[in-house]
Amino acid sequence: LGKFKAKVIEVARKTKTVGQEDPRRIIHSLKVGLAITLVSLFYYFEPLYDGFGVSAMWAVLTVVVVFEFTVGATLGRGLNRGLATLLAGALGFGAHHLASLSGEKGEPILLGLFVFLLAAAVTFVRFFPRMKARYDYGLLIFILTFCLISVSGYRDDEVLDMAQRRLSTILIGSATSVLICIFIRPVWAGDILHNLVANNMEKLGIFLEGFSAEYFKTSEDGQSNHDKSFLKGYKRVLSSKNSEKSMANLARWEPCHGRFRFRHPWKQYLEIGTLTRQCAYKIEALNSYLNSEIQMPIKMRSKIQDPCTKIISEAGQTLNELANAIKTMTRPSSVDSHIENSKTAADNLKALLHTGLFEETDLLEIIPAAAVASLLIHIVTCTEKISEAVQE
Amino acid sequence: LGKFKAKVIEVARKTKTVGQEDPRRIIHSLKVGLAITLVSLFYYFEPLYDGFGVSAMWAVLTVVVVFEFTVGATLGRGLNRGLATLLAGALGFGAHHLASLSGEKGEPILLGLFVFLLAAAVTFVRFFPRMKARYDYGLLIFILTFCLISVSGYRDDEVLDMAQRRLSTILIGSATSVLICIFIRPVWAGDILHNLVANNMEKLGIFLEGFSAEYFKTSEDGQSNHDKSFLKGYKRVLSSKNSEKSMANLARWEPCHGRFRFRHPWKQYLEIGTLTRQCAYKIEALNSYLNSEIQMPIKMRSKIQDPCTKIISEAGQTLNELANAIKTMTRPSSVDSHIENSKTAADNLKALLHTGLFEETDLLEIIPAAAVASLLIHIVTCTEKISEAVQE
Repeated sequence: LGKFKAKVIEVARKTKTVGQEDPRRIIHSLKVGLAITLVSLFYYFEPLYDGFGVSAMWAVLTVVVVFEFTVGATLGRGLNRGLATLLAGALGFGAHHLASLSGEKGEPILLGLFVFLLAAAVTFVRFFPRMKARYDYGLLIFILTFCLISVSGYRDDEVLDMAQRRLSTILIGSATSVLICIFIRPVWAGDILHNLVANNMEKLGIFLEGFSAEYFKTSEDGQSNHDKSFLKGYKRVLSSKNSEKSMANLARWEPCHGRFRFRHPWKQYLEIGTLTRQCAYKIEALNSYLNSEIQMPIKMRSKIQDPCTKIISEAGQTLNELANAIKTMTRPSSVDSHIENSKTAADNLKALLHTGLFEETDLLEIIPAAAVASLLIHIVTCTEKISEAVQE
Repeated sequence: LGKFKAKVIEVARKTKTVGQEDPRRIIHSLKVGLAITLVSLFYYFEPLYDGFGVSAMWAVLTVVVVFEFTVGATLGRGLNRGLATLLAGALGFGAHHLASLSGEKGEPILLGLFVFLLAAAVTFVRFFPRMKARYDYGLLIFILTFCLISVSGYRDDEVLDMAQRRLSTILIGSATSVLICIFIRPVWAGDILHNLVANNMEKLGIFLEGFSAEYFKTSEDGQSNHDKSFLKGYKRVLSSKNSEKSMANLARWEPCHGRFRFRHPWKQYLEIGTLTRQCAYKIEALNSYLNSEIQMPIKMRSKIQDPCTKIISEAGQTLNELANAIKTMTRPSSVDSHIENSKTAADNLKALLHTGLFEETDLLEIIPAAAVASLLIHIVTCTEKISEAVQE
């Protein structure tokens, strides 16, 4: 019994976490409940039920499978479902008609052949990368509807009537989902993508700030015990490719909303995301020098500290500024000067290394310094490219 | 008309590519067609149709949505669908019974309330990361079935009979899908994961071999115009996290097959994958030195060439050997000696840098050498970790 209690508390705690992480999830759940309840009114009210009969079931079914978290996903699924049902219904009716011409015996054989060919062909089309990205659900519904209409037509002579009732309930279900999804606290895939790209950039900026403090900390600090979680924030950027891609696909379904118009250049976000990720790879390499066995001697470290911290802070500011520019959708004002500054600092660092003022030291100890310096110079180039992409 | 012809040729060409890339796709399409045709026999044969009636439709519907490319996915969806239908059916029947006790007027209100609460709660549960990974589809079907049974029970007094017929057709549909998926040329998610992890490792090995030839090429070669595509193979490793994760989730549904037993340690693969990706990040950094502006002077390059090529070739062989060991599921025989060799070579490189035989050269020109050397030393550590993980 004690175990059961602990389990219940555990689940309650988790529920709270999931809800707090993103309160939109709670609202989404309520919205789904509302949509399903609304659609099930078809069963309760006599006049509505008389019109549709058992087909009202399809409205409930549609809401359950169409209603998704983001507007883009809901719209995409709704449109896919509606169009696929329409097309497949027409085709299925045609197949049914064609098969029925061939007489009592030939009909099931011909129908079976049609179903086999169409199912196999459409399943294959689902492997096309482009189709998969945007029309996967529609193709599934296409197979489904074609089979249902053409096959059940074999038994049900009122196939046209049935198809029509089913189509209208599916449209009602899709429309209910889409309307509730858009008009009650909508969650836009475009917004999510927008924030994701900006936040990723910000995370890199936060890392750079933290890195500077951590790497060049004076030895007197000893074991610093302040929070190091900011050094891990960038890890998520490394594997953000798939979520960016799927959000961009969903965002393309969305109509104009907020500061975005229809056909907003979502591809641009993917490009910025790729550049940000490239920068993150460099930062991953940089991070490995924080815990490396071979550490730079302090004397050496203090020599290159000035240009390095300068580069880091300017690059960090560039990233923050760019993230901000994306968020507010304004032209960044001081990014160019930050980039200029970081370039000058990189040149200074190069010059410093050039004068060879380390001749007396062991070359092995220079390696980390050299590697860090070279990574920083690379990062400057990265931020410059990101800046160009953002400004477009 | 010419445009249309070009379009048709384009589509035909693409179809061929998709089929050639993975011939299992064609077989999968045929399998789906076969399963649907089999299940639609329920409509054609009098005795079968008499037993199930219109509910036979649910068998077709189940096959269409349950049949997936891999056995794991099909089994997962089939089990999810079957169990969720069973549970939700029972619960829906209970709700219907409870609501009917409250009289003519109270029934629709109470039913509406039940539907709203359950739909909202289960939708929220779908956000739990663990539930999402394995039971997302089951939860969806749970909402669906509960709503259908409890709501349509309001109109249909034979609700128990209907629920039973529906459940049996769904079971028939799921079973057909699973059996055809398993017994006709199965595609195992476990196999895919297994090969993915091994191939990723191999790609890194291929890169290292190519890098060595490319970076230390003698200047006489000038612009080498041989194929450089192998230098790009590793890029896919960087973003392979999601596909590995989803395959591991699917593989857990699979029974023992081939060389894998049920509950094969799939998590181990994810760990190896993560380590491989870490190694790939280093290689990404290494790659940037191939096209860097600051190039090492040739004199310098030739000095460190020996230990560097040694490290690279030994590390490459280690990776290849490990990939092979995974593929054949045998204990790698000579990996340890390769790792030893690469460590010695790394020590040699360190010693070479230690003697400071570059004092006369410009420090700025040492940076790339130092960075490359340091990355190589890191890669050696990486391969060692991967090797440990593989041996487990």
